[in-house]
This record gives sequence, C-alpha cells and structure tokens, in this order.
Amino acid sequence: MSDLPGRIAIKEEGPREGFQFEKGEIPTARKIALIDALSGTGLRQIQLVSFVPAKNVPGMADAEQVVAGFTRAPGVAYTGLWLNERGLERAIATGKLDIRGHLNLTASETFLLRNQKRTLAENLEALHGIAAMYRRRQVPMDRISIAAAFGCNFEGDIPVGVLLAQVRQMLAVAREHGFEVRTLSLADTMAWATPLSIKRVVGAVREAHPELQIGLHLHDTRGMGIANAWAGLEMGVAQYDAAVGGLGGCPFAAHKGAAGNVCTEDLVFMCEEMGIETGVDLEALLEAARLAEDIVGHPLPGAVKTGGSLRTLRAGIAAAAAA
Amino acid sequence: MSDLPGRIAIKEEGPREGFQFEKGEIPTARKIALIDALSGTGLRQIQLVSFVPAKNVPGMADAEQVVAGFTRAPGVAYTGLWLNERGLERAIATGKLDIRGHLNLTASETFLLRNQKRTLAENLEALHGIAAMYRRRQVPMDRISIAAAFGCNFEGDIPVGVLLAQVRQMLAVAREHGFEVRTLSLADTMAWATPLSIKRVVGAVREAHPELQIGLHLHDTRGMGIANAWAGLEMGVAQYDAAVGGLGGCPFAAHKGAAGNVCTEDLVFMCEEMGIETGVDLEALLEAARLAEDIVGHPLPGAVKTGGSLRTLRAGIAAAAAA
Repeated sequence: MSDLPGRIAIKEEGPREGFQFEKGEIPTARKIALIDALSGTGLRQIQLVSFVPAKNVPGMADAEQVVAGFTRAPGVAYTGLWLNERGLERAIATGKLDIRGHLNLTASETFLLRNQKRTLAENLEALHGIAAMYRRRQVPMDRISIAAAFGCNFEGDIPVGVLLAQVRQMLAVAREHGFEVRTLSLADTMAWATPLSIKRVVGAVREAHPELQIGLHLHDTRGMGIANAWAGLEMGVAQYDAAVGGLGGCPFAAHKGAAGNVCTEDLVFMCEEMGIETGVDLEALLEAARLAEDIVGHPLPGAVKTGGSLRTLRAGIAAAAAA
Repeated sequence: MSDLPGRIAIKEEGPREGFQFEKGEIPTARKIALIDALSGTGLRQIQLVSFVPAKNVPGMADAEQVVAGFTRAPGVAYTGLWLNERGLERAIATGKLDIRGHLNLTASETFLLRNQKRTLAENLEALHGIAAMYRRRQVPMDRISIAAAFGCNFEGDIPVGVLLAQVRQMLAVAREHGFEVRTLSLADTMAWATPLSIKRVVGAVREAHPELQIGLHLHDTRGMGIANAWAGLEMGVAQYDAAVGGLGGCPFAAHKGAAGNVCTEDLVFMCEEMGIETGVDLEALLEAARLAEDIVGHPLPGAVKTGGSLRTLRAGIAAAAAA
C-alpha cells in the first residue's frame, strides 16, 4: 500500500456530464447555481459545458450563457469540451474559460467506425490536424487520453499492446507539433474495467512510460467506479475525473443506458477517510450534490449524500463525550 | 495481488434483509418466488427469514409460511436468523432449515447500551448462555461474528485492539462449551469501513489468528461496498455476505437511513471478470435481481442488473465476428 498518493487532483465533470445527459430542460440559472456551488467546495478544476451543435446535444444549447453567468472563483480552472475547431473557437470566444488542449484516441476501432466512420489510422491522422490547430491558436496542450481503454461494447476487451501503441503514436504526434505531454488519461468509457484490470493496465502503462502522470476517467455503469478508483490509488494514480452526485447517467428506471462518472463526493469521502488529501470540503460538496439532485429532479446514484459523512458523526460523538 | 482467492463463497442475505426492511407488505408467495429464483442461480447459502417477534418486525410475521412454501434445491444451505432461544426453537420447528449457530458480539459498547441495554461484559456473559443453548440442542456452531467491527455511529472508530480482545473472548467461550471455531465474520454494520481499514483490520486479525477463516459482511451506505469487497479479496478473504439487488435498504428518497449489504450480482460480476469463481450463474442472478426489484416495487441500488454483464456482450461480439 506504499504507492497510495498523499494527495489527488479531481476534475469535476458533473455540470457538463449532467447538462448534456439529462432529458428534461434545465434552466440556465440552475446550471449556473450548481457551478457556483461547486466553486466553493475546494475543487480546483471544473468542466462546465461542451461546445457542440445544439441540434446534437440540446442540453448544451445555452453553453455560452452558462459560461457568461457563472462567477469565477480564484484558484479554480474552468474548462469546456470541444470536438473540433468550431467548438474551440466558441470556447475561446467566451473569454472566461481556461483553454487547455488535449489529444484523444479511441482504443476500439469498431467503436470509431460506428461513431465517427473512421479507422484508427484515419483517427491518428486527424490528430495531426488537432495538434496543428492548438499550435496555431497558441493553446497549451500537455495531456493525451484514450477512450474505451479497458474494453468496448462493440469490440470487447482491449489488449494492453493496442493501448501502448496508441500512447506512443500520440506522444509522437505531440512531439512533432512541439508539445510536451505530461499526463495520460485512461477512460473506462463503457465501464469494462475491474480493479484487477485497472492495476494491470496502469502497471503496464507506467512501466512503459514512467515519465507520464496517469489519470483515470471511470464510469460506474456496472458499479465498479469506486473500487476501480481505489485500485488506481493503490497504483499511485493521483488524478481522477468525477461527477458530483454521479451526474451523467443514472441506473434507475427512467434513465436507461450508461451511468455517469464515479461520484465525486463518494470519492472524496473515501480519500478523506484514508488520509488522502483532495483539497475538497466534503460537507460543502454534499450540499452541492443535493443541489444537483434537486436540479435534475430525480435521485442521483451517489451514496454519501444520503449516508452522510463520518466527520460529522465523529464530531457529534466527541461533543457528546465532552458534555 | 497473489493473495486473491481462486474461489469465494457468498451467503445470500437478500430475502431476510429485504423482507424485514421494506415498508410495504410483501405477499408471502412473492417472497417464496424470490427464494426459489435464487435457489437456481448456483448460490450455495441463502438466508431466508428471521425468527423475531412480528410486533418488532412486521415483515417477518410470515416467516414460517415462507419456509414452508419454498422448494429446497440440492446442495444449497437454507438458513434463518434468530436472536434468542424462542427464535431458535421456531427455526428448528420448521424442520426445513439448515440450523447453524454462531456467537456474536458488538464492538461498540455505546451501541450495545443503546440497543440492548447491556455492557460489553454483560454481552459476553450472555454468550455463555447462547453457547450452552447450542450445546443443549445439539446445534453445530463454528462461526463467531463481530458487529460494528469497523466503526459505530454512536461510538466512532473501533480500535483494532478492542476487536482482537473480543475475538479472544469469543474463542474462549466457544472452547469452554466444546465448540471449535473456524470462521470469524467481521460486519461493517454501520458502513464505516474503507478499503484501507478493511486491509488494516483483516491483516491484524489474520496475523493474530491465522487459523481462522475471515468473512466480511459489508454495508453500502456510503458507497464503499464493492471497493471494500475488493480490498477483502486482495487480503485473501473468501467469504462474503451479500444481498441480491442490494436489498435491505436503499439510498433513495423514500428510504432513509442505512443501505443494504453489498449487492450480490455486482460482487459476482466483479469476481467473474477477475477470474475468481463464485459458482453463481450471473445471468440467472440478474434475473433474480430484477424479480427482487419488481417485488419491492422501487429501484434497487445494484448496478449490473441495469448495466448488463460483459459475458453477454462478448458473446454477441464473437457471434458477429463469426458471421
């Protein structure tokens, strides 16, 4: 257990995940209220919106208004997501976001062919265009990511060798365009990972690329999210994407399909109890999670917002003992 | 990771947990239907009911009828729960259950005082009466268990030394009455455990008592259930209590308070994916989980019953590739 990090960094993706996933229309002011609540929790990075065509993702039609309306807190990086130059232009035009590029590949060719009508080779080629775009627009870029890194609903298990080849290819593209990569994010997009595969894959990647920091983006569709995060912690992984309340999908009746990211407050709870710093005020985050639940209007899967933190219980016990 | 067991044993507690927890009345025939469905999944041990006064637990008023109605499957142990001699008599009188005794202590004196108006010393003294009862009635007894082993809402964190003392005391009581203890079950009754505390406590107990097999009874109130089970697996723990669908509590609006046991099908999924045998047919278990959800009439927290197994996806991918 000596590999446990002393501190982790969490990228909060709940607003973007939630607003683009939820079926009903969420008023812009409510989106802003959630972002402002999250700003006060100690989270250092919050992804607010995606800049994608409204016809594809109706819940993101008000991306510019959301960005215009929230209040920046000092020390917090506010990011957006884009898939092409038009999206990047929109993000830059807000004048209010922290613009950071990254390169992404998908480990599964079958998935790529189905969703983007591209082969892996074509996808790799497209990365050159994206890297050139970042260079041209002077966007900093030090992160690469791989989607479906642990398995794919259409292709099945992903051999570690395929991942490692993709990492090498992305590093080469970045280098060619003058970028130095510091972080590799592995996304369990379709929730195929188990703690054992997390350990195996992270171990193999770290052995091949000890210079890279590894991040994990974990989906909870099969209930493995927190266990996979713990397996990551055991491997020394210190960067996690997460979504407040578990926003971004829901295993309950009215919400079929994939569940959202691992739940931020459950992750913070686990870390806090184990002495791993997150910089987050758990009680404030639980308030934000309850607000998120109120905004979407249905139960969200996070457990600690209902189960309660232990810090509160300990404080009550200590107060009773002192009385 | 060399400590991972090759096979685990699961005690299914969903029927008892669910029937005694759910607020609405569940028809006896539906309870029997769930038990019969579970009997066909490969589970080798199923706890059906508690024999407790109906005025305390109305959902268990039909315990005898439930036991009378289900169909025994070969190779499955069917158990009940009792808290005193009257309960044991009722269980024996059914003539249809596998009667196995165990000794239980609670790690938290505060909890004991609140709930049973007993000190730890009085509780220990009462164990002699229980052990004598098993001896007198020729009930086999080879298991001891400790409730609130990882922490208590009223007492706080439980020092490992307190646990180890209780283990020694229970072993002494068992020995005095001529029983040989083989298994120690540690219950995280109030969901205070994290993967790190699971590893620490299991490690300390195993070091002190290498002769004992350790079992874990994990509640999911704070979302740590599966992660804690994985931590147990890493420590070589090969016995788990679990509840189909996560029956026995629910983190959703209408169901305040503690969540149920770790979800059986999510545990089976994790083990199956990691090459750890459970003897359980996951697809049959998922059917039983959906039946449980239908019976209680509200969403249950288990994830895989909605997310789906990977075996099915892999089979579809292989079939498509062969076509």
